Amino acid sequence: MTHFSDYRSHTGANPEKFFKSTLFTSARLLLGLNCLEPGQTQSIHAHAGQDKFYFVLEGEGSFVVGGETQAAAEGMAVWAPAGIDHGVTNIGAQRLVLLVGIAPAPGQS
Amino acid sequence: MTHFSDYRSHTGANPEKFFKSTLFTSARLLLGLNCLEPGQTQSIHAHAGQDKFYFVLEGEGSFVVGGETQAAAEGMAVWAPAGIDHGVTNIGAQRLVLLVGIAPAPGQS
Repeated sequence: MTHFSDYRSHTGANPEKFFKSTLFTSARLLLGLNCLEPGQTQSIHAHAGQDKFYFVLEGEGSFVVGGETQAAAEGMAVWAPAGIDHGVTNIGAQRLVLLVGIAPAPGQS
Repeated sequence: MTHFSDYRSHTGANPEKFFKSTLFTSARLLLGLNCLEPGQTQSIHAHAGQDKFYFVLEGEGSFVVGGETQAAAEGMAVWAPAGIDHGVTNIGAQRLVLLVGIAPAPGQS
């Protein structure tokens, strides 16, 4: 396998929901992208036993984490620990591209 | 705690070695920064039982992972699985800023 990946090769759109792709994964850690078109929402949800971060690469989102709601653009990291409700809506005019890490990776339990 | 962090508030320089900071951490996952001034090197090393990624936020580095050496600039993700030798040298004229994730977090075993 290669150990190098350009995130721009893994972006995309899913008109039904939002777009997900995987850059790298192991049992311990999944690193991928979530891409939301303008107005798209990732519904509020929680992961039991998994910690997650978002890192905004492009665009602007309104994030909900626990009881906190905040807009975040390029360069912001958002932390969603296990069991904490979180979600995001693209509130900008361009695609919202998020680097996402989940540890351990989904489907490992 | 807040769930939001701007990476630009956590950059810095360490003339002795390279600069490390933590954005968020749990037992499962550490999310932080490694900042290397021009010419600085993070020596080749490996983590037993921990997977790691680098994501280049600013600058350009020459990365070694396993037997592979590659230059990578902004937008590139580099994957260093457990037990695989990896390191990086700043080969650019500006600071190299890397988002780094390690799962599980150091010091958890």
